[in-house]
Amino acid sequence: MTLDELRNRLRDFADARDWEQYHTPKNLAMALSGEVGELIALFQWLTPEESAAALDDPKLAAEIHDELADVTLYLVRLADMLGVDLLAAANAKIDRNEHRFPAR
Amino acid sequence: MTLDELRNRLRDFADARDWEQYHTPKNLAMALSGEVGELIALFQWLTPEESAAALDDPKLAAEIHDELADVTLYLVRLADMLGVDLLAAANAKIDRNEHRFPAR
Amino acid sequence: MTLDELRNRLRDFADARDWEQYHTPKNLAMALSGEVGELIALFQWLTPEESAAALDDPKLAAEIHDELADVTLYLVRLADMLGVDLLAAANAKIDRNEHRFPAR
Amino acid sequence: MTLDELRNRLRDFADARDWEQYHTPKNLAMALSGEVGELIALFQWLTPEESAAALDDPKLAAEIHDELADVTLYLVRLADMLGVDLLAAANAKIDRNEHRFPAR
Repeated sequence: MTLDELRNRLRDFADARDWEQYHTPKNLAMALSGEVGELIALFQWLTPEESAAALDDPKLAAEIHDELADVTLYLVRLADMLGVDLLAAANAKIDRNEHRFPAR
Repeated sequence: MTLDELRNRLRDFADARDWEQYHTPKNLAMALSGEVGELIALFQWLTPEESAAALDDPKLAAEIHDELADVTLYLVRLADMLGVDLLAAANAKIDRNEHRFPAR
Repeated sequence: MTLDELRNRLRDFADARDWEQYHTPKNLAMALSGEVGELIALFQWLTPEESAAALDDPKLAAEIHDELADVTLYLVRLADMLGVDLLAAANAKIDRNEHRFPAR
Repeated sequence: MTLDELRNRLRDFADARDWEQYHTPKNLAMALSGEVGELIALFQWLTPEESAAALDDPKLAAEIHDELADVTLYLVRLADMLGVDLLAAANAKIDRNEHRFPAR
């Protein structure tokens, strides 16, 4: 599956449920923020070292997969409703970062 | 560019700057949350209708591209440091959502 | 109850459970962010007008009280662990905002 | 200054600028989330130990005061627009937490 295919699957999913009316960028940015909140809560009491081994715990690993998925879904849907190409935007940002933070 | 290529470019970027030591999942989840905060701030005073037309304003459009890029970069980097395949996780979540929310 | 009394009650609560070791500013900022994520999720699909009437729905009202409480608890605890006086900081910020945004 | 006095000062501030029209709970929850994003960004690359000493750095200390103030302002304003008593809600939540997490 590619990111374009994921975007298309989300379009079909929303269309089949008549949810496009709720999917304004304002609402989707809120939904994205809410899911990131659930993701960050999984790491809040872990040390940085424990967080690096989080996937060794099967229950926590399943929760992390679930929240990373939710964040991805709302990010892709938000970009689609705005008409933004996420990969192109991200790539252009790395170009700019390479000038801001020259490698040693 | 594919999502895998973006992930690889981010790996090279961090490696060239010796930043991997900072890129624990705990820290990256915080960075992701901070960028989502900057993104949501762009929409906070807009009506839902105004948010749908946000890209018509060139200055706001540039800020939205920039913040969506930052969110994407940290999400992809976080998933990579955890060893999670974002597209597979997102696709599996839509499968589950199709059972939770049957189409009409 | 005053804000100082709330701060003291939270100190006693953490002390009685030996939780101070987890209450670093980094961890508490994450916990605050996670609770704000739960709060924002309550409003994400509401129109601005519906959000203004959110307390008319008893179930939603209870959830809003609960999440506002959690946000307050972590904010007060974070400020305490840093040694910041929230009311003084907020008051000083309004002073600055009065210069940045002169009233008409 | 008490929390009630801060709430009243914010009411006057918004009233003098005719900003009440923008201060729906939906918008204020977004503004709160954006400020928490700025706050968490201050701690994202610090170790937990470094975060505990963050106020020793004068520049960082000023930024932390500023962001904690912004979070407090939007939280107090959000609660006021909803008609929620933050201290009462927080106190009631600690009562519930004492049952959920008995002290040893």
